[in-house]
Amino acid sequence: MVTQSGKPAPDTTRRSERSRRAIYDAALALVAEVGYPRTTIEGIAARAGVGKQTIYRWWGSKADVLLEAFLDLSHEASREAGEDFAIPDTGDLAADIKAVLRATVDQLTDPRFDAPSRALAAEGVVNEEVGRRFMTQLMEPSLQLYVDRLRAAQRAGQVRPEVDPRIALEFFISPLAQRWLQYTGPISYEYTDTLVDYALYGLAPR
Amino acid sequence: MVTQSGKPAPDTTRRSERSRRAIYDAALALVAEVGYPRTTIEGIAARAGVGKQTIYRWWGSKADVLLEAFLDLSHEASREAGEDFAIPDTGDLAADIKAVLRATVDQLTDPRFDAPSRALAAEGVVNEEVGRRFMTQLMEPSLQLYVDRLRAAQRAGQVRPEVDPRIALEFFISPLAQRWLQYTGPISYEYTDTLVDYALYGLAPR
Repeated sequence: MVTQSGKPAPDTTRRSERSRRAIYDAALALVAEVGYPRTTIEGIAARAGVGKQTIYRWWGSKADVLLEAFLDLSHEASREAGEDFAIPDTGDLAADIKAVLRATVDQLTDPRFDAPSRALAAEGVVNEEVGRRFMTQLMEPSLQLYVDRLRAAQRAGQVRPEVDPRIALEFFISPLAQRWLQYTGPISYEYTDTLVDYALYGLAPR
Repeated sequence: MVTQSGKPAPDTTRRSERSRRAIYDAALALVAEVGYPRTTIEGIAARAGVGKQTIYRWWGSKADVLLEAFLDLSHEASREAGEDFAIPDTGDLAADIKAVLRATVDQLTDPRFDAPSRALAAEGVVNEEVGRRFMTQLMEPSLQLYVDRLRAAQRAGQVRPEVDPRIALEFFISPLAQRWLQYTGPISYEYTDTLVDYALYGLAPR
């Protein structure tokens, strides 16, 4: 397509995609630097080099922009790690969960992820609406993967049938989350491997 | 003691104690209302009805005031609940841990505790120095009680000798902490009882 001036028209899809990515990057960088309360649509727009109307055309609020930017960041991290959006099922439950938790350790210690995630998580602690959206939109889909994998393990006789997978999965993710959020201890592969062994076989003697 | 004017001198110890309590109350109320970053020594002083020099005489920073106010709040809550600063040892590990976690559920759902604790926890997520002080001064002493109780259970043959109590205790406290901080699920006695049963006996069949 050629415009009246003879120059090729900008490819609006590609331009939109470029703007969208610039907005995500700006939103994540800004929230990491100044925190959630001081992050504004205007600030994101200025940093991304777009008009603020561009942002308002696509998103209703800064919470919307940030949640989408985080979803995109998580998906990109998964793609880079070559992960499917599922927990592997090799038949060895302990090995499968250990592999996923090791990838989570890598993500939590990745600076691209750490600072913006802390900013959003901190806001969620004191702002219930943001906290619940963070949970529903960012965390719940991942938690559901653990539910699915634990249900498969129940069918295979590797997890007791009376165990509620929605509670059981918290033994894998909550201690790691608390160490990350509240500095309750160091984060390592050895640590998450230990969590899996303790959770599956219990603390009491067999 | 009688002053030159003939009036009794103020009891400075009692007055100090009253000021200290007013400062704690003001600090907790203020941080709950405006958050950690906007809480100032000046604001605490004004609300407590004391001069800011009174605060600076006793504490070096707002973090110091807040941490002490929280320590005091926790101790008061324990006194009200008639708790010793230890986890009971009736010989029944599951029952003892369940009792302590039920008291924690009560504390987390107590509005006096909830809002100021969230404000301090949120700051700790994005401010590593505050987070680590929160952990070391407020949380670690409680965690040590779990370590002690689990070691006693190891001596009694109720916990496998190779289990690290410092990691094992996270199965009791971290899922509950994450539900409170990140809205990953509802908080109830039934839930914490279930955590204890799963943690002790594991997810895999026996």
